[in-house]
Amino acid sequence: MSTPPFADIDSLRALCREPALSDPIAINQIAEREATLTKPAGSLGRLEELTSWLGAWQRRSTPRLERVQTIIFAGNHGVAAQGVSAWPSDVTALMVQNFRNGGAAINQLSRYAGTTLTVETLEDLRPTADFTQTAAMDDETFLRTLTRGFNAVSPETDLLCLGEMGIGNTTPAAALSAALFGGDGKEWAGRGAGNDDDAMLRKISAIDRALELHRSSFADPLQIARRLGGHELAAIMGAVIAARMHGIPMLLDGFVCTAAVAPLYVLHPEGLTHCRISHCSAEPGHIRLATLLGQKPLLDFGLRLGEASGATLAVPLIRAALACHTGMHTFAEAGIAG
Amino acid sequence: MSTPPFADIDSLRALCREPALSDPIAINQIAEREATLTKPAGSLGRLEELTSWLGAWQRRSTPRLERVQTIIFAGNHGVAAQGVSAWPSDVTALMVQNFRNGGAAINQLSRYAGTTLTVETLEDLRPTADFTQTAAMDDETFLRTLTRGFNAVSPETDLLCLGEMGIGNTTPAAALSAALFGGDGKEWAGRGAGNDDDAMLRKISAIDRALELHRSSFADPLQIARRLGGHELAAIMGAVIAARMHGIPMLLDGFVCTAAVAPLYVLHPEGLTHCRISHCSAEPGHIRLATLLGQKPLLDFGLRLGEASGATLAVPLIRAALACHTGMHTFAEAGIAG
Repeated sequence: MSTPPFADIDSLRALCREPALSDPIAINQIAEREATLTKPAGSLGRLEELTSWLGAWQRRSTPRLERVQTIIFAGNHGVAAQGVSAWPSDVTALMVQNFRNGGAAINQLSRYAGTTLTVETLEDLRPTADFTQTAAMDDETFLRTLTRGFNAVSPETDLLCLGEMGIGNTTPAAALSAALFGGDGKEWAGRGAGNDDDAMLRKISAIDRALELHRSSFADPLQIARRLGGHELAAIMGAVIAARMHGIPMLLDGFVCTAAVAPLYVLHPEGLTHCRISHCSAEPGHIRLATLLGQKPLLDFGLRLGEASGATLAVPLIRAALACHTGMHTFAEAGIAG
Repeated sequence: MSTPPFADIDSLRALCREPALSDPIAINQIAEREATLTKPAGSLGRLEELTSWLGAWQRRSTPRLERVQTIIFAGNHGVAAQGVSAWPSDVTALMVQNFRNGGAAINQLSRYAGTTLTVETLEDLRPTADFTQTAAMDDETFLRTLTRGFNAVSPETDLLCLGEMGIGNTTPAAALSAALFGGDGKEWAGRGAGNDDDAMLRKISAIDRALELHRSSFADPLQIARRLGGHELAAIMGAVIAARMHGIPMLLDGFVCTAAVAPLYVLHPEGLTHCRISHCSAEPGHIRLATLLGQKPLLDFGLRLGEASGATLAVPLIRAALACHTGMHTFAEAGIAG
């Protein structure tokens, strides 16, 4: 395991503010080839943009998709004790077992999309502290879980899909979003994995009390992530930082995954340019958050499952984009005057 | 080649008005299994809807995707002589050759999605009559090209993707749409495969003159298809009728493909329930038309290529939906209390 290049929150913050490193030469070479292919210019729309993005971050004029990885980070949440979810916290461990037994949606999606699936449980699934009472994590736990995520990313990965499993984790996602961008529990909370009206009221109340308790720290996006986040959210942030350093394009999943990395956007406007939001979740905060991050999700299928399902579902679209770019004949080869 | 069950436009119209034949038993059985799978109810969103739709039309409680077919119908258009396209009509034949040589976008998409690609040229690529002067097709030609499309569909197909190639064919698509749903050339015409402002004016003018000439026939959707359509549009309509009879779920492509079959919706409100619109084209009339047909396209990637590219791009999403439904473990198998 390599040592991540941050020893404390201050050095982490400095790292997050470094410029992005996509490759303008690859972008130009891909655009040059694209212009010669047998189709009206730009007619493959977003497929062309995705190929360019792949090459820009892989720093290759011929992008490749040999090593595609899906990582699920799993954690539990102290705030779940407030009754914010329709499911008990022990379902997190049961679903991790289901991932390992090949029985979950993500197993089927990963197999079909040709990704390597890894499941990382954080802190042995012990919950964070209840953030309506205190910070979800102390500095040490935050950095430790973030480092787990950082180290889970292999530098040789061609494309990375991230997701999470953690009963109750749309509550920290909503709290994080509100702390970063304004608004309250009512504006950011959704029904998660099936809340009834009573659970919704408890969820909104928990978020509002947490916002009140931690408000004095809202100037620092990393303090927001530590105080209002969760283990798997911190790990996702660590993985996104690693992918940016290694030049790995990545697909974010739904609301929790996107909220987990939103602090990186606040720290640097190009902090997430190596990421694409794979889908628009049914959780109502997600499209709002995506818009604030300047992104249009690739798919709008009303998924609300997490576990990297949306990110991995989008992989075939990226493979199709690359297949067009590398496999099509040019106008010259086809004997057509472009 | 089987004889299609229509001898003239009247018998065709009667066939189009017959009730749809999806299978409620398959729908129920799929919903019953879906409810047992290890995920919150409904959390796979549109993937669940797609599985149900597959089974409903295949009339199988376990849908299958072994024989997936992409058919491109190619034709030329008399109205192209009015300068409505950025490309000359001989590009239609050159692109058909490109399809046969494996060099087009659709070849790469079809290979990746695992579909069998067939290209059908209509009337030896002789153009229709210029519909600003007279009907695009006489009755005999309309029924002949429609029959070509009908017979191109194998009854054993599990999922069918349709598309077209025909320089100038967004002009008949716009004219058809305006004739069926109201509006004029300016409201329905888009830039097609790259029109400049002058070509746009010629295109709008051609559509408006055609609407004026044929307006007295607008009460009959099939007369609209004959007078304002084209060979490949009629063939697409024939294929969609065949798929409905054989119980084959299908993916429509962009604006031209959708406009070609819109008359079937006007003839019967369930005339297209076996179809899903695969993507929302960059051609501005397409989302308007999709909305009028009561459909939300699966993808919104700004494609404007035709040749079944959007339909075939969506196939992996259908395969992923089915993989989840058939491969996931149940709550009982996973030892989780649902």
